[in-house]
Amino acid sequence: MTEMNKTWILRKRPEGEVKEGDLELVESPLEPLKDGEVRTRLIYLSLDPTNRIWMSDVDAYLPPVGIGDPMRGGGLAVVTESKFDGLSAGDIVNTGLGSWSLYSTHPGQTLTAMPKLPGVPLTAFMGPLGATGMTAYFGLMDIGKPKAGETVVVSAAAGAVGSMVGQIAKIQGCRVVGIAGSDEKCKWLTETAGFDAAINYKSEDVGAALDKHCPDGIDVNFENVGGKIMDQVIARLNDFSRMPLCGLISTYNATEPVPGPYNFSNLLMRRTLVKGFIVIDYFPRFPEGMQQMAGWLMEGKLKFETDIVKGLENAPASLSRLFEGKNLGKLIVEVSEPPAS
Amino acid sequence: MTEMNKTWILRKRPEGEVKEGDLELVESPLEPLKDGEVRTRLIYLSLDPTNRIWMSDVDAYLPPVGIGDPMRGGGLAVVTESKFDGLSAGDIVNTGLGSWSLYSTHPGQTLTAMPKLPGVPLTAFMGPLGATGMTAYFGLMDIGKPKAGETVVVSAAAGAVGSMVGQIAKIQGCRVVGIAGSDEKCKWLTETAGFDAAINYKSEDVGAALDKHCPDGIDVNFENVGGKIMDQVIARLNDFSRMPLCGLISTYNATEPVPGPYNFSNLLMRRTLVKGFIVIDYFPRFPEGMQQMAGWLMEGKLKFETDIVKGLENAPASLSRLFEGKNLGKLIVEVSEPPAS
Repeated sequence: MTEMNKTWILRKRPEGEVKEGDLELVESPLEPLKDGEVRTRLIYLSLDPTNRIWMSDVDAYLPPVGIGDPMRGGGLAVVTESKFDGLSAGDIVNTGLGSWSLYSTHPGQTLTAMPKLPGVPLTAFMGPLGATGMTAYFGLMDIGKPKAGETVVVSAAAGAVGSMVGQIAKIQGCRVVGIAGSDEKCKWLTETAGFDAAINYKSEDVGAALDKHCPDGIDVNFENVGGKIMDQVIARLNDFSRMPLCGLISTYNATEPVPGPYNFSNLLMRRTLVKGFIVIDYFPRFPEGMQQMAGWLMEGKLKFETDIVKGLENAPASLSRLFEGKNLGKLIVEVSEPPAS
Repeated sequence: MTEMNKTWILRKRPEGEVKEGDLELVESPLEPLKDGEVRTRLIYLSLDPTNRIWMSDVDAYLPPVGIGDPMRGGGLAVVTESKFDGLSAGDIVNTGLGSWSLYSTHPGQTLTAMPKLPGVPLTAFMGPLGATGMTAYFGLMDIGKPKAGETVVVSAAAGAVGSMVGQIAKIQGCRVVGIAGSDEKCKWLTETAGFDAAINYKSEDVGAALDKHCPDGIDVNFENVGGKIMDQVIARLNDFSRMPLCGLISTYNATEPVPGPYNFSNLLMRRTLVKGFIVIDYFPRFPEGMQQMAGWLMEGKLKFETDIVKGLENAPASLSRLFEGKNLGKLIVEVSEPPAS
């Protein structure tokens, strides 16, 4: 009997949040593997805010996923069959910009086996050592350029990117204030991740809390969210501040035009540097970032959490956890059983 | 008989545009000069959009002018009396951040005599070789970093800063498109200043005109204006574009909060660098900028215009020319007779 694949197909462009029927899980037979190809079975699918951007027909940094095409995404997979010399069954690989599929077929030279690091769980390659970790590392270090003693604010602080940003900033000797959406997240930020302060934007006056926790103003704003929270932070930026612009999750589900920050003029007055970036621009420098992050991880300096949902069939519905702020740490779909470590 | 000074005093903070009664012209006797001091008589007072910012009690890059204090401003002045060894009566100096006064008294070491350049009129030191010229030079070259073949858009293009930005960008080998507020200005931009195209935002659809004149998108947006025009430009930025944020004149008279650009998310998607700057931050590098601009000026590569209003008494009312877009080139108040050149 032919083994069957399962793939989420984009059927229509979501209006606002993703709803049932926007995507369809389709089964199809697996084709025989050709020379030079590798077949992988997805273990962990990464769910990220940017997935929502890809579903919209907007002028983003990548073309939108076509209607009728497999949903774009990636994660960690295990090689099940290889007709490529450099990879063997059982190797763990990152499928990069693959698809929301149980099985995938790749030209072998596009994949690299993940190294085995002592004491580092496989999920670290979905977090600190994955795309979100690289986003945090390069956005903060290359654009934010934090200096010891400066104050760094990060929004969506308990998310996969924000939690790394804050901890890297602490390693640099900064005062770090995180903004997150629950008391549980805020507790994790200050008690586990070592943030100096955390603000629950759902229950606190963000402006007043920033005044309290950032008595010397804000030197770096690592922006993940946009909207009113960003405006409060921009109002408190210091002269010559930096603002890595990583994400604007508050706007991705918008169905009407969203105004930019009302404090936009403060970017002029404060001589702020704002720089949009997408982690794939840093791909050639990933080895540098991986090495640095792996070192800190093995020294115990980076705490990370995962929010794991089981079953590929739950992928579309689970995306809402990001937009409702339900996840603490990296949101992952466990598509198939990970290997025993 | 004691000679009298005349000074504009800020009496109250303008609401919206500057109105009669917001400032008062006051006469006062001149004090005798002390050792080390220099007295100057203002020849040309510079009127700039930023004057309006200084009148408001907002958190800007300089403290606001106090109520009851002389209005801040500067320009070119002639030394009338000196008790400082480095300067003599008849020397021409730039009074920098002085005041809207006929006479001023300065510690001698704070002033430098302007060089005499062959064929260069004194007004050039209010334009290409003054603060507006330095604003254009450093903002474009240091932040915009234009490369030959790229497309540069500049708003308020016929103003003192914008007209220099476009001409410097042409010298760098760029395609240059200016946005200005009259057919007369647009004609000057393309026929005299050498811009590739000019858009009259009062009579044209700016978005459609940008599409027509920037077929390869926009690599550098030198922003002087803000508001809807900025939004149209941001929508057409290329990947890795740069946006020197020099001014937001459309918002300075605002009496209600002004939303930031609706296309703010495009700064993320296009990985744009936005950098606010104030020309005084570049003060240590003025000699470099002056030398470069003076060279181009003497080679005939920089055309410039002045819009001269006579009489210190007309300073406050003339400021509105900037906000109504009436001036072509540098707006100057001729406070007293310039020396015969």
